[in-house]
Amino acid sequence: MTRIMLTVAYDGTNYHGWQVQPNKATIEGELNQYLSALLEEEIRVIGASRTDAGVHALGNIAVFDTNTKIPAEKISLATNQKLPPDIKIHKSEIVPLDFHPRHVESRKTYEYKIWNDKFPMPTERYYSYFVYNSLNLEQMQKAAEYFIGEHDFTSFCSINTEVESKVRTIYDLKVNKQDKLLTVRVTGNGFLYNMVRIIVGTILDVGKEKYLPDQIETILAGKNRELAGATVPAHGLTLIKYDFLHFSY
Amino acid sequence: MTRIMLTVAYDGTNYHGWQVQPNKATIEGELNQYLSALLEEEIRVIGASRTDAGVHALGNIAVFDTNTKIPAEKISLATNQKLPPDIKIHKSEIVPLDFHPRHVESRKTYEYKIWNDKFPMPTERYYSYFVYNSLNLEQMQKAAEYFIGEHDFTSFCSINTEVESKVRTIYDLKVNKQDKLLTVRVTGNGFLYNMVRIIVGTILDVGKEKYLPDQIETILAGKNRELAGATVPAHGLTLIKYDFLHFSY
Repeated sequence: MTRIMLTVAYDGTNYHGWQVQPNKATIEGELNQYLSALLEEEIRVIGASRTDAGVHALGNIAVFDTNTKIPAEKISLATNQKLPPDIKIHKSEIVPLDFHPRHVESRKTYEYKIWNDKFPMPTERYYSYFVYNSLNLEQMQKAAEYFIGEHDFTSFCSINTEVESKVRTIYDLKVNKQDKLLTVRVTGNGFLYNMVRIIVGTILDVGKEKYLPDQIETILAGKNRELAGATVPAHGLTLIKYDFLHFSY
Repeated sequence: MTRIMLTVAYDGTNYHGWQVQPNKATIEGELNQYLSALLEEEIRVIGASRTDAGVHALGNIAVFDTNTKIPAEKISLATNQKLPPDIKIHKSEIVPLDFHPRHVESRKTYEYKIWNDKFPMPTERYYSYFVYNSLNLEQMQKAAEYFIGEHDFTSFCSINTEVESKVRTIYDLKVNKQDKLLTVRVTGNGFLYNMVRIIVGTILDVGKEKYLPDQIETILAGKNRELAGATVPAHGLTLIKYDFLHFSY
């Protein structure tokens, strides 16, 4: 038996998210189906991030165990031949049998895209959130700095989130604009449910001058979801990559 | 009666191109339908570029005549409310009654996108052409320079193209690469049928080292479609913009 790690890219538009659900197309469900067919055994992948419906990924991670004789690095290519065009495995490699992508330390990078113009851009409609308000980029960039470091993110997660600790570390958070496309890129050691989307919603409110940048401190300290901005829509969000630390394979 | 000029953006994926065809969804057909409904008269738009199926646009141009009392600049917003999300009018403005977008001098800019990686990228599948071969970017950039200027583009258009002259001027042609995304951006005074896609196919062959950059000269001089490279697929192509010269309105 070997454990295989997959790096998976997908367009989340036509899926009900990562996690298997009865009678609904999901990324996990498609991977299980096509890997099982290829390897002629029942495959159940374990995902690193169970992304929501509409969220995209350049590099989500999944592992599974197999008895196949097919070399690990060939699994990606062979499965891609069969997978639908909106899901592709970019890498397949052997990892130790005790490697679990949610139980090892990692850095995750997400990107949220905002199309900021008077009119929506058709080719961007599934990949960025359309905002017509004029936005104060400099204030948004100042606001971003307040998130960096270790904080209790209770104000920035869905009220029903049940986890032991809401303390997370954000290593980097940058807001950039190129022509009409505004990008928020964030790297952290973990994100609570809807955390990236609520952070972006709050930074967006700073851009609309509803908050001042330094009010982020107050919102964090308040530990109350109602203090932060709205949860921006899923389709602007892309999981960029996982970096696993203190771990070589 | 007034003549209105529209700047139109669209995602060409779900359309059979610009031009009206019986029982098929086209950009021109959708514009005619929604403008007629809004203005309560029969509207027939004239397009500047009749893009092929799958080709996208950020700024195609269309004009139409109307007796409406709705101010020109409000037509875009009102029509956008009804138009499907893959077609949006970015601007509507009055032009002289004798303005015809195909009969005035203009500069057109197209962009062709190539996703150059070992694996296709799901979110790019409708907007860029996937090429897994390794490409010599420097040679492609050298090849691009040979197209600039006034040339007979017989070798770079479909054999059935029936026009008086196949002489066109290319003002600018640049090949750039950012991470996995290779972009060919070209500006000219006009393009023959499939011309941009054949130019890109030929530059791609230079990237694959099937041709040397200076062979572009020989291919141009030969005035024979068979000398040039393949016509790359439509979905990588986007009409970026029209600039109308010697003309103010």
